[in-house]
Amino acid sequence: MSDPISLPSQSEISGFFAVARAIIARNRELILQRQQSGFSIAIKSDLSEVTEVDHAVEEAVRNELAQHFPDHGIIGEEFAPTNLTADFQWYIDPIDGTQNFARQIPTFGSILALHYKGRPIVGCVDHPMLGQSYSAAYGEGAWCNGRKLSLADLGPGASLEYELVTLSSPAQFVRTNEMHRVERFLKNHTNVRIYGDCFSQTCAISGKTGAAVHFNVKAWDVAAARILVEEAGGKCLTRVVEESERGGPYWRMVLGKPRVVDYLSKWFLEEI
Amino acid sequence: MSDPISLPSQSEISGFFAVARAIIARNRELILQRQQSGFSIAIKSDLSEVTEVDHAVEEAVRNELAQHFPDHGIIGEEFAPTNLTADFQWYIDPIDGTQNFARQIPTFGSILALHYKGRPIVGCVDHPMLGQSYSAAYGEGAWCNGRKLSLADLGPGASLEYELVTLSSPAQFVRTNEMHRVERFLKNHTNVRIYGDCFSQTCAISGKTGAAVHFNVKAWDVAAARILVEEAGGKCLTRVVEESERGGPYWRMVLGKPRVVDYLSKWFLEEI
Repeated sequence: MSDPISLPSQSEISGFFAVARAIIARNRELILQRQQSGFSIAIKSDLSEVTEVDHAVEEAVRNELAQHFPDHGIIGEEFAPTNLTADFQWYIDPIDGTQNFARQIPTFGSILALHYKGRPIVGCVDHPMLGQSYSAAYGEGAWCNGRKLSLADLGPGASLEYELVTLSSPAQFVRTNEMHRVERFLKNHTNVRIYGDCFSQTCAISGKTGAAVHFNVKAWDVAAARILVEEAGGKCLTRVVEESERGGPYWRMVLGKPRVVDYLSKWFLEEI
Repeated sequence: MSDPISLPSQSEISGFFAVARAIIARNRELILQRQQSGFSIAIKSDLSEVTEVDHAVEEAVRNELAQHFPDHGIIGEEFAPTNLTADFQWYIDPIDGTQNFARQIPTFGSILALHYKGRPIVGCVDHPMLGQSYSAAYGEGAWCNGRKLSLADLGPGASLEYELVTLSSPAQFVRTNEMHRVERFLKNHTNVRIYGDCFSQTCAISGKTGAAVHFNVKAWDVAAARILVEEAGGKCLTRVVEESERGGPYWRMVLGKPRVVDYLSKWFLEEI
């Protein structure tokens, strides 16, 4: 973990953490209510789906953050960023996995994170339909539903090749013509799942899987993941690719048990 | 659907259906209890995992079926078959997705099906952690938690290439050296998920996904799927491959919305 001296005080961080957890709990209620009462779906310019609920949740989070922290910046999936030069930047993905949300596939989640001078200090991922809420803050540990998470590394004798790992949807690899990474990896490793949303992050953070690969995603998709996995005792490696002509910048992140992260990084972060 | 004349009477089928639903409901309780209280895990000869809970659930189902239907056959994942020449054969997969069950990944399920002279007439898939119970019987419709399922086909103008579809784990394709099917498919279709258990069946049956591909699985893995999807109004195509030297026979099944099933069958059921 990086030098703590330049970070806000621990009591300030605790305060941010409390606000973030309150907001993510309210997001859950709003999402479940609107899922029951019905909503319209539209197709965005990148061909992904967006619902009224994505907009309603992000708007509610923005209003709440603006009241608490008017000088902080906000970067969200559905609206233009505000205060882009502020040291504190909140990241919102109101519904990560909108396609799954719209189909009642319960792995989608709501993401909220706070970064200070580019460093993640608070991260929350909530799965409304699964009733699971993951949260972490710098120096405060990582938690799921009131239980502190502690991620054990794979033992030195354990075989990497049978570890259960998750990949991003193939559609993410196609964005930069890198399906060869998936093809080569699958020739060497077959215990693989694809969930298509932040459920893969929370599985890795809680040790259900060995590690998760996120490939060519947006900043808000993985904004909470690093602090969550590091506070749980795991590892996170990141590479950001500037691909503005193809819709980037894109984030590539591998997170989970340290040995599994190192193993996966050569397939998905390095040049191959 | 096939000619009903040779099937048991509707009232007999209703009776089998009631027993099956009662058993699958009790399986859920047993699975959730044992998941909380802890269990040991062993590795089977095919390198897959098995827990005490798999054995306990299958034993309970076998005892219950033997009391109700002493002349019926039983084919289950964990114990040797009984009454193999009987017209009625029950199929049990006590926990489909044991790896997921052991890791608290909630997509695993318990499967129970009854076939008469090789034709599925009752099928149940229950997801204990998700609180979802799917069941169907010939002439009785397909149901989830008391709601009747009706699977609409993809409209004639709708584009197949963006449909959300699920595949079996890559490990299943490796069994018969057929990863080229996955590679070629992913060059043409990228909106893909891999759940690694019967959650992919129930997503297809309920229209959450366009269709599910099950590749090189065992009879009990897909024993409930056909009657479930056909009673919901969907389509199911099957190919059985005799591969006794590599652990078969293996079942390959595509189920879901009829147009999507036809589209997927050329990648996964025909020779390519």
